[in-house]
Amino acid sequence: MSALFERVALIGVGLIGSSLARVLRRDHTATRIAACARSAQTLDAVRRLGLADETTDDPAAAAKGADLVVIATPLSAYAEIGRKIAPALRPGAIVTDVGSVKGVVIRDLAPLVPAGVHFVPGHPVAGTEHSGPEAGFAELFRDRWCILTPLPDTDPEAVAKVTALWESAGMRVATMAADHHDKVLAVTSHLPHLIAYTIVGTATDLGHDLESEVVAYSAGGFRDFTRIAASDPVMWRDIFLANREAVLELLQRFSEDLTALQRAIRRGEGDTLHQYFAHTRAIRRSIIEAKQA
Amino acid sequence: MSALFERVALIGVGLIGSSLARVLRRDHTATRIAACARSAQTLDAVRRLGLADETTDDPAAAAKGADLVVIATPLSAYAEIGRKIAPALRPGAIVTDVGSVKGVVIRDLAPLVPAGVHFVPGHPVAGTEHSGPEAGFAELFRDRWCILTPLPDTDPEAVAKVTALWESAGMRVATMAADHHDKVLAVTSHLPHLIAYTIVGTATDLGHDLESEVVAYSAGGFRDFTRIAASDPVMWRDIFLANREAVLELLQRFSEDLTALQRAIRRGEGDTLHQYFAHTRAIRRSIIEAKQA
Repeated sequence: MSALFERVALIGVGLIGSSLARVLRRDHTATRIAACARSAQTLDAVRRLGLADETTDDPAAAAKGADLVVIATPLSAYAEIGRKIAPALRPGAIVTDVGSVKGVVIRDLAPLVPAGVHFVPGHPVAGTEHSGPEAGFAELFRDRWCILTPLPDTDPEAVAKVTALWESAGMRVATMAADHHDKVLAVTSHLPHLIAYTIVGTATDLGHDLESEVVAYSAGGFRDFTRIAASDPVMWRDIFLANREAVLELLQRFSEDLTALQRAIRRGEGDTLHQYFAHTRAIRRSIIEAKQA
Repeated sequence: MSALFERVALIGVGLIGSSLARVLRRDHTATRIAACARSAQTLDAVRRLGLADETTDDPAAAAKGADLVVIATPLSAYAEIGRKIAPALRPGAIVTDVGSVKGVVIRDLAPLVPAGVHFVPGHPVAGTEHSGPEAGFAELFRDRWCILTPLPDTDPEAVAKVTALWESAGMRVATMAADHHDKVLAVTSHLPHLIAYTIVGTATDLGHDLESEVVAYSAGGFRDFTRIAASDPVMWRDIFLANREAVLELLQRFSEDLTALQRAIRRGEGDTLHQYFAHTRAIRRSIIEAKQA
């Protein structure tokens, strides 16, 4: 059996990139991996962990001759990477990415992809609060969803190959329009992270006296927020700026709902609170049934 | 060795009450347990699970002759329970509770406790999103904190006995003033729950079309909120009404912080976002170091 890809260039080797490298190492042993990272420390770790056959800090050198290029950096680096790799891409190569926002990726990258190269924007919806190549593991993707947002004129065969890659990592793969992806992820991921960052910040600012107590008694709910709010700050800065409109619109709805609950608390309207709280229990059951809990 | 308590009355046998019953069954085999619940269904479950020696729907019958009475119902039931058990309490008995708000408990219960009976308000800070006697387990309390908020004139020996009980369940026990407890828990538990309920409600109201997608892609952060927002609605209604002032004050700070982040997103102020997000990572490390993660 021939390899799905002969040479994969990983541009960015953080949690997602290094987890994908581990999947390739485990299941695609004939595939050659070229890893690109900006920092010498990351490249050292990649070599030490044996995650790549070649390491470089030059995206073009990694992309040269690759039949698959996976961009797995924070979103703000995409445009520069796109400009650098464009001249090195060979005809028939596939460029994909793992970014959490898709509209802006298409806007930034699509114009830079040369004719004859296939662009398949993607988003494996998986992660932990840890970052960097040491944090990755091949099982990260197991039973999670990967969303691909191909453009109307994207070659279906290229989409099928990227699909096969993520399926080999244990993912279920869905395809949708980029703007729809961005709206759905604003709900399921971006707003939850913004809220978690906010509440942990609010608690931290209450002052040093309270801090040790907040830590000690965090099992009452707060610790789950601190886990989410420990996610990579650069990655999340980029996500909020890149999905600004969908996040702001949703934030508006959230604020209205919170204000309604705030008023119910102030006025002592127990029935309103109970009705709201009982309502939210059902969606948990759906998530458990969908095996995403 | 004589038993720490000879007869324990558990008024309310939900997640916490039934977990405590399991601890008593495991480690205090000489202790007789009288369980009281309002619903026949709960009492059936308690009998089926062998969690008590006697079951009743009458708090006074359970409390009669008990040397420890543990109130473990939603807060809104406390005043009525206090009135019912008062005439049945024997001199020297200890009354404690497990409620998540302490100021209001002292206000409602303390005046009802007869002279010669010791009142030791308590709060084991432990829980899951599941409710009812089937959901309990003895290990629920292991390595978590229990906060006691005795009044200035509470008998230290009674406090020591309640402390010994929770320590036998594996808890670390702290003592503080009730109003301080209510402020700390507003941060570590009450606000996080309110926010989680709100965001899950906001997502649910986006309409049926999006709902299956929200469920499928919930691994991006949303599912952690749904877990918290699946907690018992009656219990949480009571908590917000009982700790109204501390929750509303904190909510005000949270809203200010969220508005600041919202403005930074709208204006594209990446540095502000990055600074805020980097800041919140430190508290996660503290929680991991305190073994509360």
